Amino acid sequence: MAGTDRTKESEWAPGPVVILVEPQMGENIGAAARAMLNCGLGNLRLVRPRDGWPNPRAVASAAGADAVIAGARLYGSTAEAIADLHAVYAATARDRQMIKPVVTPREAAAQIRARIADGRKVGILFGPERTGLTNDELALADTLLAVPLNPAFASLNLAQAVLIVAYEWFMAGDDTPPYRLVTNQTSPAPKEELLNFFLHLERELDACGFLRNEEKRPSMVRNIRNLFQRADLTEQEIQTLHGIVTELANERVRRKRV
Amino acid sequence: MAGTDRTKESEWAPGPVVILVEPQMGENIGAAARAMLNCGLGNLRLVRPRDGWPNPRAVASAAGADAVIAGARLYGSTAEAIADLHAVYAATARDRQMIKPVVTPREAAAQIRARIADGRKVGILFGPERTGLTNDELALADTLLAVPLNPAFASLNLAQAVLIVAYEWFMAGDDTPPYRLVTNQTSPAPKEELLNFFLHLERELDACGFLRNEEKRPSMVRNIRNLFQRADLTEQEIQTLHGIVTELANERVRRKRV
Repeated sequence: MAGTDRTKESEWAPGPVVILVEPQMGENIGAAARAMLNCGLGNLRLVRPRDGWPNPRAVASAAGADAVIAGARLYGSTAEAIADLHAVYAATARDRQMIKPVVTPREAAAQIRARIADGRKVGILFGPERTGLTNDELALADTLLAVPLNPAFASLNLAQAVLIVAYEWFMAGDDTPPYRLVTNQTSPAPKEELLNFFLHLERELDACGFLRNEEKRPSMVRNIRNLFQRADLTEQEIQTLHGIVTELANERVRRKRV
Repeated sequence: MAGTDRTKESEWAPGPVVILVEPQMGENIGAAARAMLNCGLGNLRLVRPRDGWPNPRAVASAAGADAVIAGARLYGSTAEAIADLHAVYAATARDRQMIKPVVTPREAAAQIRARIADGRKVGILFGPERTGLTNDELALADTLLAVPLNPAFASLNLAQAVLIVAYEWFMAGDDTPPYRLVTNQTSPAPKEELLNFFLHLERELDACGFLRNEEKRPSMVRNIRNLFQRADLTEQEIQTLHGIVTELANERVRRKRV
């Protein structure tokens, strides 16, 4: 039965457990499981899901993230669900009149990674869809977690809130470069090949009269070279451009002969 | 009719336009509109939505984000939808065999804010739910945008992809502090009040014998002081603690007399 297999938590790379307190709709539980798995999180705990457990609707909407649903642990209270954890973050959408630290998901991700690196167990609480966590439940947590959103319209559903928190977790440990030029099997062209192309192009532009204005020629040449510099041309693309220039020039010559 | 009111784009704070190409389900368009509005984006463009436009399903699922739906502009082709834009990012989930730069949503957000500050118009393309954008459509864009996700399970739906991109946009311009201690109407206690509490507590702990071990007393006192230092106590909380110590001590004295 889902929730009793204690070994499953170790199958996932170390990460925070996601705890849904009194989730109302099975579809939302499934969607939350998918959001988690997209971001490399697999440990789900459920406190008193409204429609009981297991829940076929949760399984159906978790399509692909079945392992997360299958490994979900069931608890009778929030206190029990967090008993073994060393740090608990509680997601909240609205201001609470309590003295507590509040962090953004980005900051939480950094803190959680540090705590887990120290061997601590960490959990993140999400409350029921429409009402959120109670103040008593927040008092069981160390830190509140609030997603910065448009103050005029802040309305994430449960799975979206889980997604953003999980996404920040993933980003905090991911080394995808912010910018990458995909070049497949070719390489960027070294400057010598770029210059050869410039000279070829300028030779043809001189021949057809495009650069006939001697006074403006130097700046026009620079403008054209700067344009092509920004294209991050590959060796293959340089060859293509040589061919384009040659064929256009040949066509012009052919037209003159006719 | 939605899409013809050209003034609506100026009602929103400057931001990228979100362009959904051949979106299939009205519910997804509505969900995307909500995702946008959560993050302060309001300009939506639609290219050949499968079920036509307007779409009551989109309106229904956009509940709260009606203004985004109502202001959505309709186009017959992707080329027309991006004609007035200076920079276009195209969201893609899978590797493409084309020479193009690829950025993360976080990098895209930084670039987009810079371009918009320079007065440029920017758009972000999202393709149909199951197939994504075609290579021909990608060739109309400058930069590809890929969300870093769990390589073993990368499966965001349309609204979730829009949400993550929009969320990074919002975060790039948001000044919410990563960490904040909410203290409501009280203030953190100055060190003098903290020390007064320590002395009160230690006086009572001496009286009841808790600190009777002279050799260990200095380190025990330090441990207790360090513990309370970590609580970031407010002035009101110091008063509460004084009361707790006093009442516990009085109860002990009362019990002795009985």
